[in-house]
Amino acid sequence: MDDSGDTPIPERARELLAGMRIGYLATSRRDGDLGVVPVGVVRDGDVLRFSSQAATEKVRSLRRDPRVTLCVPDPGDVTRYVEVRGVADVADDVDRVFVNWIAREFMGLDEYPHESPTVRRVVVTVHPRRISMPRVHGG
Amino acid sequence: MDDSGDTPIPERARELLAGMRIGYLATSRRDGDLGVVPVGVVRDGDVLRFSSQAATEKVRSLRRDPRVTLCVPDPGDVTRYVEVRGVADVADDVDRVFVNWIAREFMGLDEYPHESPTVRRVVVTVHPRRISMPRVHGG
Repeated sequence: MDDSGDTPIPERARELLAGMRIGYLATSRRDGDLGVVPVGVVRDGDVLRFSSQAATEKVRSLRRDPRVTLCVPDPGDVTRYVEVRGVADVADDVDRVFVNWIAREFMGLDEYPHESPTVRRVVVTVHPRRISMPRVHGG
Repeated sequence: MDDSGDTPIPERARELLAGMRIGYLATSRRDGDLGVVPVGVVRDGDVLRFSSQAATEKVRSLRRDPRVTLCVPDPGDVTRYVEVRGVADVADDVDRVFVNWIAREFMGLDEYPHESPTVRRVVVTVHPRRISMPRVHGG
């Protein structure tokens, strides 16, 4: 661990986290259930980030309880995956800088499509605490 | 709901649950973290089932706390998914009947490969309580 408390992401996990990947985010919902939804994840050093509309159940959930887990599979072989357990923080995506960077970097577009630019966005940063990367065969 | 207490799976969700699908299973781990791992899911009426080796962290977790959530994406479009929140029960897969059925039905094999037939297996049945099927665009 470095001074930030983030757990370093091992080299073999970094391969699974190249570019933008689909990860499955688990949160503890206010109703006591677990929530699991897909998010588009990018690695930045030893943290993972994703964009979300601010007014979503997952953001409300992780503001209340920041413990989250992301499972990111290899798109070509889902028996390979990395499971990152950690804590999330939420920051406003001021002027939509982050989501528009995603659009430029990964979608070849100047601005993120699919919604009005007046929609409020947040940047969620996941600080890894424990990382596991087993290989399974059908569970 | 029928007498079993299972929430009926709507028709549009059944399309995403045809055959064997990869689902991302969230459990509450004993260490307080959330676990998320891929499992191969099959629908049987209004329940979902998967096979697991008996001696896994996910099985230990859901024996302790049976509240689980499965997120099953459309493999061709991960912005389409069904999120099933419910409770799981665990039964011994006596004589490996279930996992060998999976091998015959979905792998074209007489017996499940990848492991010794002496490995103990369980059948996990997820009883849906709440089902949601939003459509997202990049979260």
